[in-house]
Amino acid sequence: MKNLPVPEDVLKAENRIRGHISVTPVLTSNGLDNICGSELFFKCENLQKTGSFKFRGASNALQMLQEEGLPKSVATHSSGNHGAALARAASERGVNAQIVMPFNAPEVKQQAVQAYGGIITHCDSNLEARESTLKDVLEKQEAEEVPPYNDPRIIPGQGTAALELCREIKDLDLVVAPVGGGGLLSGTALALQTEWPHIRLIGAEPLNADDAKRSFEAGKLIPATRTDTVADGLRTSLGDLTFALIQKYVETILTVTEKQILSATRLIWQRMKMVVEPSGAVPLAVVLNHQEVFRGKKVGVILSGGNFDPVF
Amino acid sequence: MKNLPVPEDVLKAENRIRGHISVTPVLTSNGLDNICGSELFFKCENLQKTGSFKFRGASNALQMLQEEGLPKSVATHSSGNHGAALARAASERGVNAQIVMPFNAPEVKQQAVQAYGGIITHCDSNLEARESTLKDVLEKQEAEEVPPYNDPRIIPGQGTAALELCREIKDLDLVVAPVGGGGLLSGTALALQTEWPHIRLIGAEPLNADDAKRSFEAGKLIPATRTDTVADGLRTSLGDLTFALIQKYVETILTVTEKQILSATRLIWQRMKMVVEPSGAVPLAVVLNHQEVFRGKKVGVILSGGNFDPVF
Repeated sequence: MKNLPVPEDVLKAENRIRGHISVTPVLTSNGLDNICGSELFFKCENLQKTGSFKFRGASNALQMLQEEGLPKSVATHSSGNHGAALARAASERGVNAQIVMPFNAPEVKQQAVQAYGGIITHCDSNLEARESTLKDVLEKQEAEEVPPYNDPRIIPGQGTAALELCREIKDLDLVVAPVGGGGLLSGTALALQTEWPHIRLIGAEPLNADDAKRSFEAGKLIPATRTDTVADGLRTSLGDLTFALIQKYVETILTVTEKQILSATRLIWQRMKMVVEPSGAVPLAVVLNHQEVFRGKKVGVILSGGNFDPVF
Repeated sequence: MKNLPVPEDVLKAENRIRGHISVTPVLTSNGLDNICGSELFFKCENLQKTGSFKFRGASNALQMLQEEGLPKSVATHSSGNHGAALARAASERGVNAQIVMPFNAPEVKQQAVQAYGGIITHCDSNLEARESTLKDVLEKQEAEEVPPYNDPRIIPGQGTAALELCREIKDLDLVVAPVGGGGLLSGTALALQTEWPHIRLIGAEPLNADDAKRSFEAGKLIPATRTDTVADGLRTSLGDLTFALIQKYVETILTVTEKQILSATRLIWQRMKMVVEPSGAVPLAVVLNHQEVFRGKKVGVILSGGNFDPVF
């Protein structure tokens, strides 16, 4: 296992990426509060540069690489948002970005990678294909790997969103973050440990890709056996670093069905007039469908991204 | 013709509806600025209560009715946004709202009217059917009519959005507002006359419902002969009040195709992560497709509404 990051690393990341990332707004909706009987505070990472929180981790990684001397190329595999974020963070520093993407990644995410100057190599939609294709690319391009989540530079970067949220909204009872590979959830856990260890942290996961819940309950890493969820950002499985932090700091992981995810996505669109991708709506789906946990509480909801193909 | 409203009426409306409506944010997008070569300032009425600017006019009308003693019921015909706005403004004051809607009005708009307690009567999708159905409703319910646009209480209310925009963003060169029945465009014209008569005002209209452009150029009211546009909020024709104000104060009316409207709608979703209805994207479509008028200018864009059925 690489070095496990610590809470202090999130504060360092925050200083490192200041001025590179957007401090995103925290928005509320009376309508949604009425529906769920909680006070919800949405940390709007769909409004982050590149349309997701992933730009925080990628910026932290590139900034750390810059401190030791930038490589000519960086490379990763990504269902899309990390790829776009890495492409932008790299191109802002004159570095090439090689992105391995599943052939069925949403069109809008592939376009974004290309718009930021990233070079895409397609692969099949499973972890084995991603990893072997990436290995080829790393060797051929002599690139430095910047993994999407299981990385001590990425995790603290993702945690900076929760730092901003908890500073802006006092007295949160709970924070809910989506969990795919676990970079955002474990980074959020570290962020809460810096000043707010009393805030309860809950992971939100699609039932159709519930490896984090099963790993959490079994006490050992269990890779995903199915990933057929509309929440395309949450199809990946935990890594050893993210799992260790989630085991240590997260209270529980709650799951939701595909129908519940789509319904929450639609609610955010209709009530808040914001474009959110299904992965980003999973925490609201959890709040709406596990109301006994959240009723009467002040809940921070990490709305992780907004890169979704509009269909019309 | 009823009394033609004057610029002062917009200032009065602003005082009357303060605390009832939301002061909406003005947002920008570097990405969109780069695409069109202008500096764009979006007045986000999609984030207004009920999801459109229509709540401003409806609130002003209800507040004026309140000054003389509220009726038991109000009634209107509306493709949707005015209906929802009137239903909410009425219900906030304990008044019934009877809304005549075309049977093909978007589902989300019909649901909104009902959610705010409005009572819908369906009719065919043409002005004649709307008016005759409304006449029946007005007689049967002894309701007070609050028309959607051609009304001296509605026009000044709609103009308050531009007041807020011009106070917040100094030195705008141009303002672009969509035109359907003309309430928003004529109200905006009055607002600019209060302090900023030098700001050029341009109307944005779908080519497929270009009665305002044809009326403007002919110097007389020419009702729409076709209204087959995806911009469902702009299918209506000008009234005598709105036409008189538009003739007096508007520089020109520019049109865009259906494809251009959908492309602009998509751009706002993708780049700003905001849900906008096609009618609300018509001004951006005009800026993108008549770049010679806008290049290098500071442009206020009235993003009129966000009530759009997400399809997924």
